[in-house]
Formats: sequence, structure tokens, C-alpha cells
Amino acid sequence: MNRSRKLIQAIAGEAIDPPPIWIMRQAGRYLPEYREIRQKAGSFLQLCLDPELATEVTLQPIRRFDFDAAILFSDILVVPYALGQSVAYENGRGPVLGPLEDFQSLRLDEVEQKLAPIYETVRQVRHSLSPEKALIGFCGAPWTVATYMVGGEGSTDQAKARRLSLENPDRFQILIDILVEASALYLTKQAEAGADVLKIFDTWAGTLDDAGFDRWCIQPTLQIVELLCAAGVDVPIIGFPRGAGARLGAFASRTGVNAVAVDWMTPMKLARELVPAPIALQGNLDPLRLVVGGQALDDGIDAILAAMRGRAHIFNLGHGITPDTPIAHVQRFVDRVREMSG
Amino acid sequence: MNRSRKLIQAIAGEAIDPPPIWIMRQAGRYLPEYREIRQKAGSFLQLCLDPELATEVTLQPIRRFDFDAAILFSDILVVPYALGQSVAYENGRGPVLGPLEDFQSLRLDEVEQKLAPIYETVRQVRHSLSPEKALIGFCGAPWTVATYMVGGEGSTDQAKARRLSLENPDRFQILIDILVEASALYLTKQAEAGADVLKIFDTWAGTLDDAGFDRWCIQPTLQIVELLCAAGVDVPIIGFPRGAGARLGAFASRTGVNAVAVDWMTPMKLARELVPAPIALQGNLDPLRLVVGGQALDDGIDAILAAMRGRAHIFNLGHGITPDTPIAHVQRFVDRVREMSG
Repeated sequence: MNRSRKLIQAIAGEAIDPPPIWIMRQAGRYLPEYREIRQKAGSFLQLCLDPELATEVTLQPIRRFDFDAAILFSDILVVPYALGQSVAYENGRGPVLGPLEDFQSLRLDEVEQKLAPIYETVRQVRHSLSPEKALIGFCGAPWTVATYMVGGEGSTDQAKARRLSLENPDRFQILIDILVEASALYLTKQAEAGADVLKIFDTWAGTLDDAGFDRWCIQPTLQIVELLCAAGVDVPIIGFPRGAGARLGAFASRTGVNAVAVDWMTPMKLARELVPAPIALQGNLDPLRLVVGGQALDDGIDAILAAMRGRAHIFNLGHGITPDTPIAHVQRFVDRVREMSG
Repeated sequence: MNRSRKLIQAIAGEAIDPPPIWIMRQAGRYLPEYREIRQKAGSFLQLCLDPELATEVTLQPIRRFDFDAAILFSDILVVPYALGQSVAYENGRGPVLGPLEDFQSLRLDEVEQKLAPIYETVRQVRHSLSPEKALIGFCGAPWTVATYMVGGEGSTDQAKARRLSLENPDRFQILIDILVEASALYLTKQAEAGADVLKIFDTWAGTLDDAGFDRWCIQPTLQIVELLCAAGVDVPIIGFPRGAGARLGAFASRTGVNAVAVDWMTPMKLARELVPAPIALQGNLDPLRLVVGGQALDDGIDAILAAMRGRAHIFNLGHGITPDTPIAHVQRFVDRVREMSG
């Protein structure tokens, strides 16, 4: 681990002032330079799998805002793609996945090779990135990826996957086990290629009930952490169980992650009480405050800084930045976090 | 307060065995006898405002399942209707509300009279209901009702209302203040007509951030509770801040409600820790377990009963029952809760 990187220091449990900053989806549609590259690439998946373009897109927000970390430009659904399920991104509708009849037909043996362009992106980004910046690799958590694989598309309630997990938990476990293995392999390769930090996005953890959260969110995450450890991957891990609410403490204590990303619905003050030190906390400005700007933005930033004083903290949003966010607000956000700290 | 009613005893802080049971949206589309009446009525709003039909629909699930409480058949959007905003329910699309340019044009002085048919329903239901059954009146919380009034329809992120609340909090406060007053009046009239318990549904509380949850969920709920108290309404109140997560404790401690309904994403064991006794807890089976039935249903029930032993508890779902729920599963649910207790 390169301890000169502020993000790494924070994840190691140090309270750093000002805290390291990055933004979820910082390489994205709110940036004109991103939209320009996006037009050049064919499909969204082709952009994810093109090392030159993906490297450029990953680096764009660092150049513009001097964030403390770059996050690999990719998508959580590259894993189902690598396993052999068709994945297409349709404008205005979001991702659409092909039918998935037989989990046993998924090809774990092809994951390493099919995702090779992404490891190449990681290598190129790490090569171009200045030494004090961290590079975050990531994957979707098995539960969240499974909701897309079973549902065939995104949904607000994840009903198809939740239903399968209740009606036939043994069958659903087969899919989750495959995703645990594929995700651990994918993250291991990213770390070997130069990722300093790994993040596991469990975007849809929130709709699971008590027993489901334990079996489909906590257990698979713990298994990935253990597989990474067994593979000798010495890179810290951020977990993001979005919607965990009061269960944030159980997630933090039982998965083995080094840091927990907090959604904007959980006050950082409560997250700080729920999650035992030295586990670091990341978050959690409401992305809408960044869209609105002005007093709403300043107040939100100040409240989070006040709540996190003295605790290991990574400043970020509570969810991804939205395409309608004015660039000037992002600059104001970065400036204010760096000015108001201490 | 009629202490012979199990629901009232539980809300007063007594652990009752077996716990009282009712189901959110128990008068609804999963029942063939409801669908028959629904066809007879004109619009959904007409059904809400027809005392004979609304009384019949309110009583149907009590006859069939012997629930411990009836809940007034109505809708949270009767308050905007009474304030003068047009409200229509379109098939497959949900409610659609007319434009709302000027909050000052809302007519608080018409609320009492326009909702008079609903108080008549309350009187008729109470008259027909056996003495050991409680009758729950309700309203939507100001924040949740405001999301529909500002948005013009339902949404998954409540972005329009959230945006207004951040961009122009003073203007948004005017709307919330009107809704606090209208809701308190509406609930007072329901209590005077015979409602034993009042419930405030804050379905969309979850998308508010820390400051928003305090200002738009906790404060307006507290104000309604205080207005009811000032009006001499001696009826216990259940709050339902759906999606509150770790903030359930703050909601329970600071609003003055007598019971808190818990969504299915917050484990009852955690809710019990977060919410101080003698405040009662209601919940929280995942409605999908009721749809699926079998082992998933039994396991869900048993886990909740185990988590709530010795604490004042009202058994319910963590959200409304869905139209695709088999009636046989509802019967199994009621039977199991009553058999497995103790």
C-alpha cells in the first residue's frame, strides 16, 4: 500500500484534514469532455472495453477537479457480460440483459480473458496518474448484479430477484456463488494491474429484508473479502451497501471491509456511531444539493464536515453525480471541502 | 380510550400475546369482494367519498380474516383534493394532480366540509365494528403529500419536491405549514367521529437527507401531534416514516407518536433497540413473503415474533399488501401469528 496517498491513509483509519475527495460517477455525462468521447465510442460496453478511451475518460475528472482518487471507468454489468449473458445499454431505458435460463451455463472460465481489456485500462490509468492519487477498481456486489441478471433490466423494487431468492433460495444461491467467484477474480486482476483500492457496489442492498440482507448482502461480500485475502491481494476495500440504514453497523462489522460508503439517507453522525473505528466512512452529500448549488450545497457540505471531524473520512456524494449537475457546482464543492476543513 | 381493544393495549406499551394483527392496505385489490365494489363505484375518489361503499370496503377484511383493527378506506390524496388541487387516479399510472402554482390559493377553510363524507364513513364503520376491534383513521404526512402535490404524480425519487425544498425552503415551508394544519384538522375530525387510533403515513420520508428529514418529516409530524393534543384529541398515534432506517430512533423520540410502524428493511431487533419503550412497534413482514407463501412466509413470521417477544408489538407487513397476494396466504399469515406466539 502506498501510504503517500490520502485516500489510502483515510481508509487505514486516519482522520485527514481536509479529507480526500472523489465523486461517485465522476467520469460521466455531466462532463462535456466525457460526452465527446462517449459519442466517438460505439456502444457503452465498447467504451468500457476500450483501454485507450476508458483511460482517457477515467482521467478527465482528475485533470479538471484534482480529485484525490480516480475510479476506473467501467460498469457493474461487465461481469454478466463476461459470464456469457448478453448485455446491451439502450438509450433512455438503461441496461437490457438477455434471458438467463440455466445458471450452470454461465462461463466462469471466460471471465479472466473477456475482461482483460479492463485490466489494461487499470494499468494505463495507474501509469498516467500522479503518485499521490489513488486508483479505485470496483465491481457490483453479487446481490445487485443478480437483480439485473434475473430481472433482465433495472427495476425500482428488484422484485424478480427478490422473489426467486424467497421461492427458491437454493437455486438463487448457485447464481450468487458464481458471482462471488467471478467478482473476486475480477477484483484480484484489477489489484494486480495496479488498483490501490477496491470498491464493491451493492446498490440494491436496501430492498432486502433482515434475513435476505444477511444471506445475500453480508455473506457474499464477506466471501469476496476472504477470497481476495486468500489470493494475497493487499488492497483495502470499500463496501457500499446502499439503503442499509440501521444495518450499516452489522455490514461494517461482519464483512471485513476497511471502509463503508454511506448513502445520503443515513446521517454521517449516525453512521459514525454504527460503524466501529478504525473502519473509515465515505460520504454522503445528497447529489441533489450538488445540482441545486448555493446555500443548499454549502450547508450540506458543512454539516458533513462537522459530523465527521476527528474520524477517518472520505468526502463523497451519497450516490452518483447526476448528468444535470453544473460543473461550477462541482468546483465549488471541491473548493469548499478543502477550505472549510479543520 | 377503550382498553378492551388489543391494538390500543399494545400502543399503550403492553406486550400482548398473540400480538394484535392488521395489514396495511387490507381493504384492497387482493380481495375479490373489494374488486366487485370498486367496479360499482365511479372513480377511486368517489369510492373514498361514498360513506356506504367505503364502510363496506373497510369492513370486508375484518369479516374475512378477523383482524384486530379496521383501517378507514381512504387515500392520502383526499387532503390535496379538499384543499382545491385536482386529483385523478388513472389506471396503471397512479394519481395525477393538477397544476399548483400558488400555495396561497389552497383553501384550508374548505377541508372540513369537503371531507365530511369521510367522517361519516368513520361513524358508520365504528357503529358496525364489534367493540373489541379498533378503528384506525389516517392521513398522509405533510412531506409525502407535498411530494405528490409538487410533483403532480408519484415518483421514485421525489425529485421535484426535494428540489423545491432545497432551492426555496421558505416557499416549501408554506406548503408544509398548510398541510400540517389541514392534516391535524382532518385527523381531529376522524377522532371525533370515532377513530380509536390515528396513523400518519410518511411513505417517502426515506429520500430526505439528514437536514431534510428533521425539517420536513420530524417537525411537521411533531406539529400535528401537538395540534391534536391542543384540540383535546385523546387518541394514540402511529407514525410511519418509511425508509427512516437508522433515523427511526430520532423519529420516535422527537415526534411524540405512541407507536412507530417499521418498514421491512429495518430489522425489528434493531427497531427495538432504536425506539425507546414504551413506544410500541408495528411491523414488518416483507409483503413479498406474503405473496410467495410457504417456508418464506413461515420463516419471516417466526423471525419477527422471536425478535419482538416481550415488547409491545403490532403484527403487520412492512408495506402495503400487493394485489397479487393469494388470499390463502393471508389466512395462513393470520393463523400462524396467532398459533406461534407465546
